[in-house]
Amino acid sequence: MFSLLTWSTQNARKISIMLEECGSEYTIEPVNIEKQEQFSAEFKGLNPNSKIPVLLDSDLVDKHNNLEPIIETGAILLYLAEKNGKFLPTEPAHRVRVIKWLFWQSGGLGPALGNFSHFASALAKDESYLNNYLAQTRSKEVNFQAIERFSKESFRLLGVLNNVLRDSDYIAGELSIADFASYPWIESAWAGLKALNSNLEKDFQHVASWMQKLQKRPGVQRGMSKLAWGKDLS
Amino acid sequence: MFSLLTWSTQNARKISIMLEECGSEYTIEPVNIEKQEQFSAEFKGLNPNSKIPVLLDSDLVDKHNNLEPIIETGAILLYLAEKNGKFLPTEPAHRVRVIKWLFWQSGGLGPALGNFSHFASALAKDESYLNNYLAQTRSKEVNFQAIERFSKESFRLLGVLNNVLRDSDYIAGELSIADFASYPWIESAWAGLKALNSNLEKDFQHVASWMQKLQKRPGVQRGMSKLAWGKDLS
Repeated sequence: MFSLLTWSTQNARKISIMLEECGSEYTIEPVNIEKQEQFSAEFKGLNPNSKIPVLLDSDLVDKHNNLEPIIETGAILLYLAEKNGKFLPTEPAHRVRVIKWLFWQSGGLGPALGNFSHFASALAKDESYLNNYLAQTRSKEVNFQAIERFSKESFRLLGVLNNVLRDSDYIAGELSIADFASYPWIESAWAGLKALNSNLEKDFQHVASWMQKLQKRPGVQRGMSKLAWGKDLS
Repeated sequence: MFSLLTWSTQNARKISIMLEECGSEYTIEPVNIEKQEQFSAEFKGLNPNSKIPVLLDSDLVDKHNNLEPIIETGAILLYLAEKNGKFLPTEPAHRVRVIKWLFWQSGGLGPALGNFSHFASALAKDESYLNNYLAQTRSKEVNFQAIERFSKESFRLLGVLNNVLRDSDYIAGELSIADFASYPWIESAWAGLKALNSNLEKDFQHVASWMQKLQKRPGVQRGMSKLAWGKDLS
């Protein structure tokens, strides 16, 4: 039996999608990050890094019968894929292809989109940052260098993904955990990216059609809805 | 037979350490990132994301006999650990513990230290940024917010690691790929972090003694030296 300790974020939606796509039974245990509950001693006992989500599987105990909490969404996806025998091929070359794009999301796409959103939002509190950003050339004002760095990197990574999806229906061939890892991040960033590039659907048409394919899946829809933006889980 | 396509960076040293610790035979094929060689069409054919290192294993071919290049250092470490049966336990709970800290390095520690270094270096070109940073309270000047964000996050993550290493000789119990993933990044950032906290060795004593344990290993020494800073591989 699985318990997902979480709040409603794009990072956590990777896992609710995977659980729904696998038809797994699970409970959602709310950890309200708006109330800083991820810093409680109890939660830190499960994840010393104070981040949601955490997945608990009552089957996953070590030789001393201690439960091993699973942290880091990449590790959770890999664990669920291996446990269910789903969304991760066993043939070695194909398995590597999935795992490398899973790490690409973890170390590349996720941090770039996350930091872009952070700096853009911080500035948006003061002024209409997108209009300013578009109207100005490279500015010396606070945060503009950071916004430039992370928006540029986000678009570069979106271009990498678009090239990969030109030749392949899904990121690593067949539908896999690599798709579930990237989808909620791109879905969530899409409107912000479109404000910077009104031609987004055309310039990244392979990403756009990949998103549509995923959006049509009942499992993806259920996973997104379980942890929808602003949903109060408590 | 392995070929490591790389340049001498802390990220690539994860892999040279692992190859040396496993006693593997491999060649190093230089990809000079100072000459932007990672953007060549030939290199992009191996890694569409234009990042070193890439590992080629002549054994890793798909059913059409196409070689599958391995990108993303987390994926490379996992692949080598599974192929060699080393530095990754097979017992499920312990295996998860290694993999979750491997993703923690990929998505957390690496991006935080990398971005800290980027913004700090960019400013250092203009002025003595560290003195300014220490002398000033939160400044409205360009880059200071980014430096603050990423130095704060770097120290937070170092604290997480210190707590983990208080109770454990290595990051996930036994020596594993989780240690090889974090070590070159922390080793490389240490002097910069010390400039911000002169008490670093005491405040993060468990990290400091973990570093010493790793530094004493001949395999780690050989791996570090193969891709030492500033080494011209061509």
